[in-house]
This record gives sequence, C-alpha cells and structure tokens, in this order.
Amino acid sequence: MPIRAVVWNEFIHERENETVRGIYPDGIHETIAAALRDDGQIEASTASLDQPEHGLPAERLAETDVLLWWGHKAHGAVDDTVVERVVERVWQGMGLIVLHSGHFSKAFKRLMGSPCSLRWREAGERERVWAINRSHPIAAGVGDSITIENTEMYGEPFLVPEPMETVFVSWYQGGEVFRSGLTYQRGAGRIFYFAPGHETYPIYHDATVQTVLRNAVRWAYNPAKPWADVAQAPNVPVDKAPEKIEKRGGSLHAKGEEGFR
Amino acid sequence: MPIRAVVWNEFIHERENETVRGIYPDGIHETIAAALRDDGQIEASTASLDQPEHGLPAERLAETDVLLWWGHKAHGAVDDTVVERVVERVWQGMGLIVLHSGHFSKAFKRLMGSPCSLRWREAGERERVWAINRSHPIAAGVGDSITIENTEMYGEPFLVPEPMETVFVSWYQGGEVFRSGLTYQRGAGRIFYFAPGHETYPIYHDATVQTVLRNAVRWAYNPAKPWADVAQAPNVPVDKAPEKIEKRGGSLHAKGEEGFR
Amino acid sequence: MPIRAVVWNEFIHERENETVRGIYPDGIHETIAAALRDDGQIEASTASLDQPEHGLPAERLAETDVLLWWGHKAHGAVDDTVVERVVERVWQGMGLIVLHSGHFSKAFKRLMGSPCSLRWREAGERERVWAINRSHPIAAGVGDSITIENTEMYGEPFLVPEPMETVFVSWYQGGEVFRSGLTYQRGAGRIFYFAPGHETYPIYHDATVQTVLRNAVRWAYNPAKPWADVAQAPNVPVDKAPEKIEKRGGSLHAKGEEGFR
Amino acid sequence: MPIRAVVWNEFIHERENETVRGIYPDGIHETIAAALRDDGQIEASTASLDQPEHGLPAERLAETDVLLWWGHKAHGAVDDTVVERVVERVWQGMGLIVLHSGHFSKAFKRLMGSPCSLRWREAGERERVWAINRSHPIAAGVGDSITIENTEMYGEPFLVPEPMETVFVSWYQGGEVFRSGLTYQRGAGRIFYFAPGHETYPIYHDATVQTVLRNAVRWAYNPAKPWADVAQAPNVPVDKAPEKIEKRGGSLHAKGEEGFR
Repeated sequence: MPIRAVVWNEFIHERENETVRGIYPDGIHETIAAALRDDGQIEASTASLDQPEHGLPAERLAETDVLLWWGHKAHGAVDDTVVERVVERVWQGMGLIVLHSGHFSKAFKRLMGSPCSLRWREAGERERVWAINRSHPIAAGVGDSITIENTEMYGEPFLVPEPMETVFVSWYQGGEVFRSGLTYQRGAGRIFYFAPGHETYPIYHDATVQTVLRNAVRWAYNPAKPWADVAQAPNVPVDKAPEKIEKRGGSLHAKGEEGFR
Repeated sequence: MPIRAVVWNEFIHERENETVRGIYPDGIHETIAAALRDDGQIEASTASLDQPEHGLPAERLAETDVLLWWGHKAHGAVDDTVVERVVERVWQGMGLIVLHSGHFSKAFKRLMGSPCSLRWREAGERERVWAINRSHPIAAGVGDSITIENTEMYGEPFLVPEPMETVFVSWYQGGEVFRSGLTYQRGAGRIFYFAPGHETYPIYHDATVQTVLRNAVRWAYNPAKPWADVAQAPNVPVDKAPEKIEKRGGSLHAKGEEGFR
Repeated sequence: MPIRAVVWNEFIHERENETVRGIYPDGIHETIAAALRDDGQIEASTASLDQPEHGLPAERLAETDVLLWWGHKAHGAVDDTVVERVVERVWQGMGLIVLHSGHFSKAFKRLMGSPCSLRWREAGERERVWAINRSHPIAAGVGDSITIENTEMYGEPFLVPEPMETVFVSWYQGGEVFRSGLTYQRGAGRIFYFAPGHETYPIYHDATVQTVLRNAVRWAYNPAKPWADVAQAPNVPVDKAPEKIEKRGGSLHAKGEEGFR
Repeated sequence: MPIRAVVWNEFIHERENETVRGIYPDGIHETIAAALRDDGQIEASTASLDQPEHGLPAERLAETDVLLWWGHKAHGAVDDTVVERVVERVWQGMGLIVLHSGHFSKAFKRLMGSPCSLRWREAGERERVWAINRSHPIAAGVGDSITIENTEMYGEPFLVPEPMETVFVSWYQGGEVFRSGLTYQRGAGRIFYFAPGHETYPIYHDATVQTVLRNAVRWAYNPAKPWADVAQAPNVPVDKAPEKIEKRGGSLHAKGEEGFR
C-alpha cells in the first residue's frame, strides 16, 4: 500500500513574484509532489492556502500519512482550527516534513514549544549541506554533502529543542552554520525539519534534495493505526488495576467521574 | 544573590475540600514556599489564580528566576495572556518546575508541543520514586528511592517528548510505572516535571520531596541575562556577513526589510 | 531480500542446568531463531560460544545484518578479537539486539562506554513491561504492556547512557522499576537492549516477546552499504578543500602524511 | 571549596617542534592551567605522559574533580591501566574535558563506544565557533561566536553518539562544518568535548577560548560523593525486596551467591 503524502504550499509568491513563478510555474507544491511520485511507494497530492479549509479538511487529513509544509509570508493567515487539526493528526501518528521558512509556521511552533527563531540573509550565497549522520535513512544516497549554489542563509542559534537526531548541518559562504536537518517525535508522529528551499532559487529541482524529500517521507511514515485518543487521560478504575489493590486515604473524585483538564 | 522563586497555585481545592484543607491549611503554595526557604540560596514567594493577572504581571515575572506551577481543576481558567507570558519568560531563561497535575496546564502543554496525557487512579496506593539518574543534581540527597505511602497513580504512556534526562521513574502498587522526573530545555529555559503531589495526601510535607524541589529550583536557575529577543529572527545584512560575500540571484525582500512571520 | 539475522548464545546453562534444559532443550538461540523465522522478512541462523571463533568469523559477520546476543555466565570467555569484530561491524551498520544478561557482555559495555550495571533478584516474581513509546515500531502489536509471570528482577539505576528512545519500562512485583527497552546508535549501527529473558523461565516462548524480537530485528536493520572505513580519519588535502583556500601558518604534518592515532 | 582540576598533556610536540615550543614554551598544559587559575573557584595542576603513571596515580585521580585531556601523536603510548583508571573515575563522577585531537584518545573512545573518527586538514584556515545553545553555562560570556583565525579543520561526519547537548558548531573557511562542543554523561560523570586547540596555532591563548574552558570545568564538576561501586551489580535478596514477595520458580543462583560478570 502506497504512502499517502500531501504537499501543502502557501502558493503566493509563485503568483506574485516573477522570479519565483519562473522557477515554479505550477507552484512549489507541484514540483515537490512530482519528485515524490518518482518514488514507487509514495502517492502524492497537493493542497494550498486558498482552498476551502486550506485544502486540509478533517476527512482528508485522516487519510494522509505524511504532510509536507511550505509557507513563508502568510503564516498568520492559516486558520487556527486547521493548525490544531494538523497538530492533532501528528500526535495520532501522521508524519510531518517542515520545509525551509516553515520553521515559523504555526504548526511547527506549536509542536516544538519553542520560538523556532533563527538569523537569515538573502544573498544567493553558496550552502553546503553536510550529512553528519550519514547512515541515517533520510541521508541515504546523499553522499558527503549537497552543494546548493544559491541559497538563503539560515543561521544559528536556531531556537528549537535539542533534536532526537541531527541529520544535516549546513555551511554558508557568508560564515554561518545551521542545523538544517533535524528529527523529532511528538505523540505518535515523526517530524523532520529540512532547511533548504528558498523560493527564489531552484532548490527543489535539485536531484539530491528530491532524494532527501523522498527519504524523509518514507522515514516519517508510521504504519501503526492512528492513535485516536492520544490526548485523552483515561481513569484506570481501582478494580481494573493490573495488581489487586484497595482504595485508601482521601479522595477528590466520585466513582467513575472524569478527570479534570 | 538569592534565586527568586515564585510558587504558583490554583488554590481551589484547599478552600473547597475539607481533606485538602486539613493537609494544606494555607494552601499547597505556602507549604512549598516554606520548604524552599529552608534553602539558604532561595527566596520564595507565592501567587495564585484568584489574584489580578493570577499574581503574575509582567513586571513580577521579569524578576522571577524560577516558577513552580501547581494546578489541577482550573487549567482552563488560566488566562491565555498569562500563559503566553510564562512561556516567553521560559524561552528567555526563566526556570519552570511543573508539579503533578500541572502536566495538563496550558503552559506545560505549550512548551512540550505534545498532548501530555497519561493514565490515572486515585486509590491512595503506594508509590516508589526511583532515582534512576542518581548522580543528577536534582536527585542529590535522595538516595535510591522515595517511598510515598499514599499517592495518585500516574501511568504510562505519558505523551511528552523524549526528555533531555530521565531523573526519576515511579513504581505503583497497582502495577503501573511512570517517568516521574523529566528535564527539558525550551529556548534558554530549563524545565523539570515532577509527578508526585496529589492534593489529598501530604506529599509536599515529605522531607525528601522537599529536597527534590529545592534541588530542582537550583538546577533550573539560569544565571544568564534574560534573552529578551529570543523569538526574533533578525536579518544579517549582506555587508555584515562574517565573511565577505556579494549578493547574487533573485530576491523577495527589499533592502533592510523585515522578514515574514 | 531477507534480513540476515544471527542469534548468538553462550549455550551453557541449557547443558548444565536441568531447569533451563527443560525450557530450551535446543538452546535459547534455537527458540529465538524459530521465532524470527515466523517473520517472512527474516532469515535466521545461530552461533554459540563453543564454535570456532564463537561462530562469528569475519566472513560471517560481514554477511550478518542483525546480531542478537544472549550471554550470562561466560562473558569473560568471549575472545576480545571477536568482541572487537562485533563492535566494528556495529559501527559499520550491523544492527545489534542485546538480550537480558547481555547487559554485561563485553560488546555491549564497549558500545555503551558505561558500566552497564544494575540491581537484580531471582525470585520468579511478576514483571509488567510497559510500552511507554507505544507508537514505536519495536512496540508494534504489543498493546499497553506485556505481563511476564515469572521473571528475574533487574532494577535501576541501570548505568547506561541516556538512550535515543525509551521504548519499554518494567514494573516488578517486588517494588523496583527498570528501563527494559532502550535504543541507541553507534557509528552506523542501531542497538536495542531488551531486558526480559532470564533462562530459568520460558520468556522467549511468549508470543508477544517474540513479536518484540521480530520488530527489533526489522528496526535495527540498516539497508545502507556497510561503512567500511567508519573508524578512519582521512586527511582532506588543501587542494581538495570544498572551498578554495591557501595554506597558512605552522604545521606538524608533511604533505600527504597520515594523521596520528 | 575549590574545584580541583588536573590538566593532562602529552607534552611531546612542545619539545620536538619549534613552532609549537614558540607558542607554548612551558607546554599546552601550563597555559591552560594558568587560564583555569584565573577563575577564583578552580585550583589547577598539571600532569604529563612522561611522569610515572603518566602523572595520574590512583590517589591523585581520587582527588581530582575535573580532568582535562590533551593528546595527539602518542595516544597509543598511554598505558591501558591508566586509561581504565580514568574511565572508572569518570563513571564515579569525575568530570572530563576532552580537547581537540583528544577525540582519538583511548579514554574518550572508551567512553563514547564509537569510532570518534572525523576528517581533518591542517591549513591554518579560519574557524568560526558558533554558540548554538547560547544560554548553556559552557557558552556563558562567549557571545554569538568565537573567531579563530588559524585552525586545523575538523570535519563531519564526527563518529560520536548523538550528544546530550550540542553547544558549539564550527564553520571552516575551506567549506566544512563540525560539532565542536558536545556534552555527554557516562555513569555519574559529565564529559565535554571541545574541538579547537591545534598545537601549531596559539588557540589556548585566546581569551574567549579560556572562558569556555573555565565554564566547562565548572559545568563538569559533580559535587556528589564519588559513586565508588558504580560498576557493581548487587543482588537484592528476596527478603530485602521493597515489597514483600516469595521466591517462586526455577533458579540458577544459590542463596547469597554473587551474580555472573
């Protein structure tokens, strides 16, 4: 059974900015989706901000295994209801790949619990993305490093939690470094942040970048059944305790009462 | 210079429930604050839900080094503005000690980015809190384990991110286990979650539990100057790049323009 | 292509102790190998201490994807040459599943860099193995917990490094807890430690324990080409630097000279 | 009470190589020890390879709180007995600061359990050491980054386990990156690896590098009583179990017998 990936894109700069449109005439999402389809295991569709519910109604998210997220200038326009829906699906087990300026998306900030801030410079300088965890499945086929001739610099400190794994670290011509490939788990969901992808350069047309995206989708895919009640805190009644015990001492809750939230 | 700790308490059950009032006549916060004051280095004050801005106006938080949080039935009543203020102060470097049912507090859930759910049972059963990282500063003076004769069971799975360090793991008479002492960093702030503390049992009167709280405050204290702009993403202008570079390629931003959020 | 697993067993107690022989007449290794073969993807063979090179000559290890290790009373009898061979194959990408008393095996101690000590008691008491990272691939199909009616107690503190992931935590009838399922990466190799498996009880006949072992083999398998020179520290000559630079300042090494070790 | 630090140095290049002698006429160890003494809390002494037991007899190590290690060409000449002694003291709680080429020292490789390999180039190029965890105590007073005008390049992949914390990441003029400041815990001991320090450049004379070293010593210091039996695996007799249990089922060990190793 194929992995069902949805590529979400803000899809604004491709319409407003001639440079970006020249690089991604159908939008960044279509370029990425096409790259994912080159993987026999992945079935990729797209969604964008201007669609009803931003193209992410509950029924569609329920059938999404891995969501890829590209946004930049309109993070604030993403509806909080949709954001919470995405966050809860991640907790239930949906994979999430956050791309480039998505570091400031509402969903990523919610899932990290940290500012997700960084330093930046748009100078078209050179970036070298080093595979520091070279045997990690996301780095398969990458070799030592990816050279991106024109990039936007993203510099440390990057205010995210210490990751589960640091897969890539980037070098920039102007003198900075950045942890450009990081893995996390939140609830049952796996998250991968990947820094390259500024829209004024043809980064998602790069064959090795496309390999990373395909690897990441496969890595983030959790075949387990969605954990529907992952956010619930069920009571374990005294008579259902694994070991036989008897109730003692004071109490707040009447028998069978729900816990507080 | 002493560490300035503030003990925040919902302070409802002590007024509504006779059992709880009998154990904490002045409120859980006053018992904890008194315990912290036994440490020569800590200067402890208190705050509660019913005070203006829940006792946590911006000026006070700005002068708080470590905040301890106890809440249970009224998480929803905590104003979102105050929650965001607490979260931002943690990012800037304030320590945060989250106690017991505070696992479901708005601030903790915001900082974890995960559901923070668990299983529970109020049966007054026995808990053994094992110091699994026995040499950690938070476990100093604890010995092998703390026995809590009457406790509320908190059971795994506990839906928090993989911690920086697992300091305590609890055993319960009824058959469950729980990671009851966990450390995290978010932004510049250190966070410690400590599970024991159900209000119907005199847990914060226990001498060793008090030792843990004092240790935790000292551990969470970050003497660095608050990182005021921790959530900002400043541009590094091309002519301020550490290494001399020249601008190339396409661009989105006019010179000196702010980045998107 | 199947995953090539080798189950290594000390294979002493099954010959010397009647109780153990009654449970594992062909040895623990054969019971585990049979369980692995129930997985269509795994091709399992066995090796033991008494064979030449303990059944692990270099050529065989080179064709092993995942090694499972069970040892107890004869850790000291394992030849250091074979231990180093195993360790290097892990660094190159071979998966390693360390079982029960294997916590004190030479290879595991070498790979952890820590004492790997713990507390223990052989009382046939009950163990509950809680899946605390329930969505982890190693916990697939396990449910909330595994009940092992008779077990050897392994108690914290367990002197291993903070793991990449804590998958299982065990509860014991006698009052202790233990992190009983832990993941690590060393070099390109993935390591899983799994505590249950005392030889005087029929633990590896348990269907859910067998599920864990199959899951673990699949998880530990790294399809990447072995990283043959993982322990080498190659010089990058000045004229091969990714960015053009010129040699400056003092030097220790003549051109083309090897680095020190 | 002051922190008792010992700076260990191979002390060969300062005698054999004129460039190195010019920079460190009394040896790297004396320069570092002098820098540590500028911290009112640290009492620093030195030891070197050519001394009896390399200057590290058991009695001295027993009174050492933090050991700093600089070695390069003579790792193989360090006696295995002394190495094991150092490793065991770390497990008991001694801090260890491993400097530069010490990545290939026997003690560091033992404690990491991984190859500790990397790429290198001695070209006197520029290094920028970025403080990526800027609020970490080891980075106090460092600011954004340290510029080292002439350095030896150390490049990723660096084959060490995923660290507890990544404090520094370095940028090199020639195009590489390196995780140059990493923290670990092994047993009760804290370990900090710090990459800068090639002997043909005056790196340990840099004021900010000296600040890092002082910070690191204070961070690595564990005030807890040494954990003397950290590597032991004591039996917990059935009648000493925290909860009352009775022995059941088969057994390997006679009553009171030691466990196997």
